[in-house]
Amino acid sequence: DSGHVNAYFPLLIPDSYLRKEAEHVEGFAPETAVVTHGGGELLEEPLVVRPTSETIIWSMYKKWIQSHRDLPILINQWANVVRWEKRPRPFLRTSEFLWQEGHTAHSTAEEAQREAHSILEIYRTFAEEYLAIAVLTGEKSESERFAGAVATYSIEALMQDRKALQAGTSHFLGQNFAQAFDVRFQNEKGAEELVWATSWGVSTRLIGALIMVHSDDRGLVIPPACAPTEIVLIPIYQDNTRAEVMAQCMKINGQLKGQFRTIIDTDTQNSPGWKFAEWELRGIPLRIECGPKDIAQNSVVVVRRDTGQKQVVPLSALVETCASLLAKIQASLYQQSLKFQKDHSQHFSDYRQFTQFLSEEGGLAYAAWDGSVATEQKVKEDSGATIRVLSALPDTTPQPRCIISNNQAQYVAIFAKSY
Amino acid sequence: DSGHVNAYFPLLIPDSYLRKEAEHVEGFAPETAVVTHGGGELLEEPLVVRPTSETIIWSMYKKWIQSHRDLPILINQWANVVRWEKRPRPFLRTSEFLWQEGHTAHSTAEEAQREAHSILEIYRTFAEEYLAIAVLTGEKSESERFAGAVATYSIEALMQDRKALQAGTSHFLGQNFAQAFDVRFQNEKGAEELVWATSWGVSTRLIGALIMVHSDDRGLVIPPACAPTEIVLIPIYQDNTRAEVMAQCMKINGQLKGQFRTIIDTDTQNSPGWKFAEWELRGIPLRIECGPKDIAQNSVVVVRRDTGQKQVVPLSALVETCASLLAKIQASLYQQSLKFQKDHSQHFSDYRQFTQFLSEEGGLAYAAWDGSVATEQKVKEDSGATIRVLSALPDTTPQPRCIISNNQAQYVAIFAKSY
Repeated sequence: DSGHVNAYFPLLIPDSYLRKEAEHVEGFAPETAVVTHGGGELLEEPLVVRPTSETIIWSMYKKWIQSHRDLPILINQWANVVRWEKRPRPFLRTSEFLWQEGHTAHSTAEEAQREAHSILEIYRTFAEEYLAIAVLTGEKSESERFAGAVATYSIEALMQDRKALQAGTSHFLGQNFAQAFDVRFQNEKGAEELVWATSWGVSTRLIGALIMVHSDDRGLVIPPACAPTEIVLIPIYQDNTRAEVMAQCMKINGQLKGQFRTIIDTDTQNSPGWKFAEWELRGIPLRIECGPKDIAQNSVVVVRRDTGQKQVVPLSALVETCASLLAKIQASLYQQSLKFQKDHSQHFSDYRQFTQFLSEEGGLAYAAWDGSVATEQKVKEDSGATIRVLSALPDTTPQPRCIISNNQAQYVAIFAKSY
Repeated sequence: DSGHVNAYFPLLIPDSYLRKEAEHVEGFAPETAVVTHGGGELLEEPLVVRPTSETIIWSMYKKWIQSHRDLPILINQWANVVRWEKRPRPFLRTSEFLWQEGHTAHSTAEEAQREAHSILEIYRTFAEEYLAIAVLTGEKSESERFAGAVATYSIEALMQDRKALQAGTSHFLGQNFAQAFDVRFQNEKGAEELVWATSWGVSTRLIGALIMVHSDDRGLVIPPACAPTEIVLIPIYQDNTRAEVMAQCMKINGQLKGQFRTIIDTDTQNSPGWKFAEWELRGIPLRIECGPKDIAQNSVVVVRRDTGQKQVVPLSALVETCASLLAKIQASLYQQSLKFQKDHSQHFSDYRQFTQFLSEEGGLAYAAWDGSVATEQKVKEDSGATIRVLSALPDTTPQPRCIISNNQAQYVAIFAKSY
């Protein structure tokens, strides 16, 4: 609906492409996996397994863009990328990960900036409405910027251990890649200009966020909006009631299937209790239990994964009750994430309290910051925290002073330890 | 619906994994892209960019399978793979391609064989009903078998240049990979057995098949069932009628949109004639033209991409007419492909006529074959053709003799030149 189209570009990028944008190669070259041999022979030029696709895509945009009428180009790619990790963490930092990467080309800086912001807004909406994860949005500080970007915007989520996770980024790339690949267009007045760019991505890291935000001691808790299975039906029977109970479960499943993603646990080896625990571990939002007593009463027992709440539901009201419970679970998980974020957000004006909060308690620490690399670095040394996103200074007089240097502040920065 | 689940395994496979199955490594090692450096360092063991994923997946099945109760495992992966190509052809032979690869594990040979055949049937149905491409199915001869398979089954399609294209394969792998990775299970009687396997895949090569089977001199012809856009609306106006025509097109599009994938060409630079040609080039199944005269008559002009047939359709009948025309185009494209296949299939018992047909006319040549590598090789030398698939001998007495050697025949083989 946003007008973006899917495309696919090669996995292997000539080393020389990566080297065309100075900051880009500096950021990514140390993390690359390099193919030196192909088809049994040493290659003349090494090929890099894409860590991100700006360079290969802009090498093509060079061929596709001549006139303002060729713009904008709004391309998205679903792909795997490799960034070498010496200390991998499942879902959060893996040498290979899956993502979507958007790469757009525009005729004006304003249009590219609007694009970068509108994508950030899509990411925020997706995180909140589907993953039920409260996120902060904002610009990154220079030291956390994407290699080759003019500005990086991010959605940041707070995990249950009170560390932040960068969960998606959108970059305004200015004319850096157009310059590197000499991509120019003739504007409406016939003059030549460099093309403006954005890129943006979310990855399988979001699965890590989902796990770390919602899980409890019994396992995963998956928000209904993104649960592959929303409802699991568990037949409860003895040998002599098996046929009757299975038939009833099939019937109930038939009623639910059109509207919900359901599964019946037909396994005959394990006990109901074992199955309850198994499906809780897998985070299925609703469990329906059905045995001979339920059949006699024309009802079932419905159990919420998030709260453990049980209720007897007459079959006549089952579809409506499931729909309503799933909506409640979705809303409640988001509210819980939002509350957690708020409960662990604090504003500081005292540096000692600020670093103590960051190193001992954890969470999101808001503080006025002078915008210098030196003060950002000092916070990192003193507390292990980094700036997650920046926000504007409040409109107060006098303007606040930097919590570290006491110089004139430029931003309110949100600091946290992070993954 | 078939019970298969999607999973994802790593892109980079340790070289030693590939070497565990003797035929597999012999087949694939010469085609691999090899990562020798990661994170700035020379790797202790080179990593191969997956040419296919049997080895990495079976290294995991080793950990997942202990008992007959862990079987079957029915996994599918959507992925990119790399097989080094010195002479690439767009869509047909590219060093990197996108595919789905299925990898299943079973407790009996029979079940694995059934799986391999049932997937072949899914591929046949998909080719015929969605891509509108007539295909032959059957087993491959030994020399064309997948490296590591006991039997390879294939769908084969005939292109308009009368060359065949292997468009999808399904392999019965026997116990070869279970042996290589020592994957055993305890059967119901408590005895240990090696696990049985299949693998199967179709790739972006199908896009090549689609292009080569249906296109004409005006460009692509995409079957409606797989066309990203089924209907293009082209407003035809002068400056003074533009607003009225655009409004009418929007209205019509509103009616069609719920049921069809549509697009309106709102471009203001190019003439209607230019647009007709452009959308024909792109293969959109139906074009709707709407101008002031059409508005006056409460109708539009609908044009079929495949036949060029035009008809005036009253707006009241537009939805039904479009549905019916799209179904007709789909059926007609398949019938045309089937007719082409039949028109260029011929049975031979004379070797001179057989090789002449293959080298000069092209198409599918059916002939009795003794099953030996030598005779298969001779046909290749004399005509450039290979065996596409095998079929059973007819139930006649006496049994036919091999067209090449005059020895007892084993199969009817279908020969063709191929991509």
